[in-house]
Amino acid sequence: MRLEHIGIAVTHLDESEDLLQRLLGRGSYKRETVAEQSVTTSFFTGGSGEAKLELVAPEGAAGPIQKYLEKRGPGIHHLAFEVDDIAAEMRRLKDDGFELLQELPSEGADNKLVCFLHPKSTNGVLVEICQTRRE
Amino acid sequence: MRLEHIGIAVTHLDESEDLLQRLLGRGSYKRETVAEQSVTTSFFTGGSGEAKLELVAPEGAAGPIQKYLEKRGPGIHHLAFEVDDIAAEMRRLKDDGFELLQELPSEGADNKLVCFLHPKSTNGVLVEICQTRRE
Repeated sequence: MRLEHIGIAVTHLDESEDLLQRLLGRGSYKRETVAEQSVTTSFFTGGSGEAKLELVAPEGAAGPIQKYLEKRGPGIHHLAFEVDDIAAEMRRLKDDGFELLQELPSEGADNKLVCFLHPKSTNGVLVEICQTRRE
Repeated sequence: MRLEHIGIAVTHLDESEDLLQRLLGRGSYKRETVAEQSVTTSFFTGGSGEAKLELVAPEGAAGPIQKYLEKRGPGIHHLAFEVDDIAAEMRRLKDDGFELLQELPSEGADNKLVCFLHPKSTNGVLVEICQTRRE
């Protein structure tokens, strides 16, 4: 299970892209809207192996990110770990007492299948596990 | 500027080490107390290049982590980026309008000099920049 990306909740994508570019000295390399989750995402390389930074902004109808921003404000939202077999990993984690927020994987950005774990079972950290979709 | 580690604020270090070991399938590789910041830290590899996970628990007198836990509860606390020259980077960021939380670097865990940026100037994310100390 390897760190794949860090999700950061933002209100205004243009402004936050500009800010992160000034901080890191490099720009976003792609944007992608995930309609199912009512978000637009923007990706930056972390400059260290494969771990990326993903800005996540609300898009369209009010979804979980909109609610998160209203409650907590902008900031670090989740940690995502890549696994080879998301179904097997979901079973393993459930059997070990972790609380999954979904029974089946859903479609995420960046050609991934994703599943979130409840922060109550992971020290207050919203954890995503993800697997690259196979053709 | 490359992602060096993600800091996670925890209340009970033993319990959180056990939890992260069950999640990731690997254990902590070192613990270190930083007396100046009143914390004990515990490090895990991220499994992806150099990016690590750092659990941060209060130790001794009440410090910033204790206050953070009382206000926000456990969870992701900061993102740390490694730079080659922390003094030059602090000047660059200050000139670019970022708000530094300190005027001089301080001693951090893992043989680093560190400086934190105010989350107000970084989209709600507490950002640390760090430089490995030279002998």
